[in-house]
Amino acid sequence: MEEREALFAEAFPFWKDLAPQQQSAILESSVEIFYPKGTVLHRAEQGCKGILLLCSGQLRTYIVSEEGREVTLYRVHGGEACVMAASCLMDAIVFDVLIEAIEDTRAITVPAAVFSRVIQDRPEAELFLYKTASERFSDIMWTMQQILFMGADRRVAIFLWDEYTRGGAVIALTHDEIARYIGSAREVVTKVLKYFAQEGIVSLSRGRVTVLDKEKLRALT
Amino acid sequence: MEEREALFAEAFPFWKDLAPQQQSAILESSVEIFYPKGTVLHRAEQGCKGILLLCSGQLRTYIVSEEGREVTLYRVHGGEACVMAASCLMDAIVFDVLIEAIEDTRAITVPAAVFSRVIQDRPEAELFLYKTASERFSDIMWTMQQILFMGADRRVAIFLWDEYTRGGAVIALTHDEIARYIGSAREVVTKVLKYFAQEGIVSLSRGRVTVLDKEKLRALT
Repeated sequence: MEEREALFAEAFPFWKDLAPQQQSAILESSVEIFYPKGTVLHRAEQGCKGILLLCSGQLRTYIVSEEGREVTLYRVHGGEACVMAASCLMDAIVFDVLIEAIEDTRAITVPAAVFSRVIQDRPEAELFLYKTASERFSDIMWTMQQILFMGADRRVAIFLWDEYTRGGAVIALTHDEIARYIGSAREVVTKVLKYFAQEGIVSLSRGRVTVLDKEKLRALT
Repeated sequence: MEEREALFAEAFPFWKDLAPQQQSAILESSVEIFYPKGTVLHRAEQGCKGILLLCSGQLRTYIVSEEGREVTLYRVHGGEACVMAASCLMDAIVFDVLIEAIEDTRAITVPAAVFSRVIQDRPEAELFLYKTASERFSDIMWTMQQILFMGADRRVAIFLWDEYTRGGAVIALTHDEIARYIGSAREVVTKVLKYFAQEGIVSLSRGRVTVLDKEKLRALT
């Protein structure tokens, strides 16, 4: 319980302002859940899960078109909060998304009903929700702008650069996975990657892209 | 001044919770500005204007691609608040937009610096900003998803263009009928048609869509 309290104190900027009984309500109602890689843990029609604090792993938030095309909107990493599964608490948000665990993920969930009671006399708690959501929306807008406005080569380069700065030169993703992340078609990604390989920017092998020339890659972003 | 106070009390849900000196700071620093139709009143690089409360008229918020292509994100009408010109107050928002008066517009502006001081001891004021921004983002996401990702606008445009070339500018069909023709939902068709009407492409009346700008319509197909 002490470990969990430390997590809340870290993740919730309003934690120290809560009354002791509000803190215990959150502590006692929260549950740790393990989501194996590949689990779709939230869908629009499933209603309101609550606020997820990620202990480890990674979530992906995405939308799906009528034709089944997916666009990844943003990712949530260990130590971060995912508030979109609590969108019922935010009446300003009518838009809905799907959430999938893309790694084995452990998360603490604070039930929406409990958080809702805290919100009633703590505007700071509601502010936390909307502020976190706005940060994500800001990311989403960025993604949308990439998809709408930018050339595919630039989008692939930006994606590879982000992966490179986060996890190093070897990017273990298929062309299809990259295409889904950037909201493009696999064929487009394959073309762009072949072009990058010819230019000596990356090398390609099965299920993996290795960045060879990071300066050239950065120049493309 | 009394009229302005009534406007603030109506637009700001936190107004009644402010200390009298906070209310007077806002009242005394706010200015009424007239923006003739066509004025671009906010750009990313111009910094932070403040919070705009629209007395009359209409604003359009939009983004522009590198090639000059514009996408309208949402509109703000009389009686509503526009917070995107105060995005400097919201450090969670890194995304930026342009704002244009599309009608002659009168607006009361509360300077960012004054609002910033109120935020410091009133989380309700910051909540108002983020909540309003989230509402807009939620609209934007919907527009993006329908218009750009799902291709609903294209399908409606293609359908209208076919009808236009076959039977002339007046298309005597309900939204429900159009939805069934293109295999979509009535709500989606209604939203797309409203968007087209705002852009001056069509006009709408009961059971009828009239094509006003055939070039713009064709460009969408």
